[in-house]
Amino acid sequence: MNSATATPAASRVDVLVREVGPRDGLQSIKPTMPTGAKNRWIAALAASGLRTIEAGSFVSPKLLPQMADAADTVKQARTIPGLTVAALAPNLRGAQDAAAAGAHELVIPVSASNEHSLANVRMTTEQAVAEVKKICAWRDTLPAGSRPVVGIAISTSFGCSLSGPVSEDRVVALAVQLAAGGADTVHLADTVGYANPVQVKRLTARVKRELGDKLGAGHFHNTRGQGLANAVAALEAGVTTLDSSLGGLGGCPYAPGATGNIVTEDLVFLLESMGLRTGIDLGKLVAARALVAEALPGEPLYGHFADAGLPKGFTYAGDRTRPGGIT
Amino acid sequence: MNSATATPAASRVDVLVREVGPRDGLQSIKPTMPTGAKNRWIAALAASGLRTIEAGSFVSPKLLPQMADAADTVKQARTIPGLTVAALAPNLRGAQDAAAAGAHELVIPVSASNEHSLANVRMTTEQAVAEVKKICAWRDTLPAGSRPVVGIAISTSFGCSLSGPVSEDRVVALAVQLAAGGADTVHLADTVGYANPVQVKRLTARVKRELGDKLGAGHFHNTRGQGLANAVAALEAGVTTLDSSLGGLGGCPYAPGATGNIVTEDLVFLLESMGLRTGIDLGKLVAARALVAEALPGEPLYGHFADAGLPKGFTYAGDRTRPGGIT
Repeated sequence: MNSATATPAASRVDVLVREVGPRDGLQSIKPTMPTGAKNRWIAALAASGLRTIEAGSFVSPKLLPQMADAADTVKQARTIPGLTVAALAPNLRGAQDAAAAGAHELVIPVSASNEHSLANVRMTTEQAVAEVKKICAWRDTLPAGSRPVVGIAISTSFGCSLSGPVSEDRVVALAVQLAAGGADTVHLADTVGYANPVQVKRLTARVKRELGDKLGAGHFHNTRGQGLANAVAALEAGVTTLDSSLGGLGGCPYAPGATGNIVTEDLVFLLESMGLRTGIDLGKLVAARALVAEALPGEPLYGHFADAGLPKGFTYAGDRTRPGGIT
Repeated sequence: MNSATATPAASRVDVLVREVGPRDGLQSIKPTMPTGAKNRWIAALAASGLRTIEAGSFVSPKLLPQMADAADTVKQARTIPGLTVAALAPNLRGAQDAAAAGAHELVIPVSASNEHSLANVRMTTEQAVAEVKKICAWRDTLPAGSRPVVGIAISTSFGCSLSGPVSEDRVVALAVQLAAGGADTVHLADTVGYANPVQVKRLTARVKRELGDKLGAGHFHNTRGQGLANAVAALEAGVTTLDSSLGGLGGCPYAPGATGNIVTEDLVFLLESMGLRTGIDLGKLVAARALVAEALPGEPLYGHFADAGLPKGFTYAGDRTRPGGIT
């Protein structure tokens, strides 16, 4: 990389990239990353220009020992100026713990598939929706200015590995119900990597029509290689926030070789190439992979950009004289 | 895979997937696959439902020893009923040799970047265009019924690793010139993996407006992970033929880890998921990877679908009651 293209000039961003590796990535692999390594990794991610990072999950450490230090990583992440710190919580207690640790943003999973909901959070979808209402009611009791953003991730929005296809009408109705129940934002998650671009565009556009600015992130996994194509489809349907994980960390013990979330560095390269400003420095982002490799020896890291590097003559979207963007 | 979804029902296809692994894949790696293994691989690809396969390249064996047996593989591929056999040829002599071996379709590379043209075929772009005119003039001397289809692949259509960005006006003008010069079809090739979906959609739509049905394949590499997103963008702009290689075979000695063409099995899964019929059996396609792995021990194979498998409840596009397709 030459110095002229080493740093993105844009201070405004067109697409918010939410890094979920320290949560979704780490919870999906066997080894546990030491707390110090997590903190160094999160600091490096923030230094690359990522503005929102999911720093942990407030679930039982018996179920997910990899996340036992979530309060520590959230507290440490909160010391980073300008960073929005998000955390996953499956229920009211987790939400309260996450808020106490200082999370700006809560992510509550509600699965569109009842089978997945039972397997994931031991509640039916209906019970999970009731839990969200409890969380929102509790949030409203907090003093203004200290209320975390409540985002709901509709898991298995595009299909479920337990029950198969998921009704789009059901997902739309669920999104409407959750927004009406007090959610600040609703994310559409392809939890198991089943989605395709036609489906993503159609369903996302429907939810956008119903929810407007309450439509949150598109959350895609690259399980069958289709993740970035789905991300582009979501952008075309009105999404402006995308989840991803550095090195595509994650996977599934039942699908050897299946990757986790879409790869942050490949996504950022794609967005900047398309003329969409992310505010992220690709060189610093790629450099952060070394921290993950060191802390998780033997764990596969995915992605192509890290090996291939910048094209000759590449410029960040914010440095261009000619505007780009989605057509 | 259960028997209900093991075989695609469609006899008509919505998207023609052109397998280029035995040419583009094999020419980009160091080891040479033995002729017998190539023939078994091509037969397995055809048996999976692939209808067009690039079986070799008619270049000097001094430059590309991996392709020294191109006449043999083309002749053998010609014995497979229903298969369209394509071959690359950089000049008139190669075109004549390919046609003599029985190739139905010639692919002649003409690089939009002069620097790449000189490096690739030792001709300026202008000289390569003149060579195409010679090839078309020779083709016209052949008896009707024995004339091969002449397709021109505009290399570096979306950028060049030697000269950087490539002017879209130049690519459009070149496409028009080549079609006017007698080319039956013009392919747009992202030879070095620089393209992004916004650019692909814009440039492909422009060429489609000028060339209509003479617009040929979209040819994308997955060098920076963006290959399938670009393939979807090309479809949205009117392309109905896509090049790919099984296992993403290929790469570039100057970019370790950079893959070759987009991965056939991931592409076919994506297209079928989107409701676009390919006529290809994913199970047979994935099984063909074993032949490549056996013939090229240690050579990396890419792609995610082979590990992850079919989603629960998956149906091929041709088996659906509800139509899909690009929106």
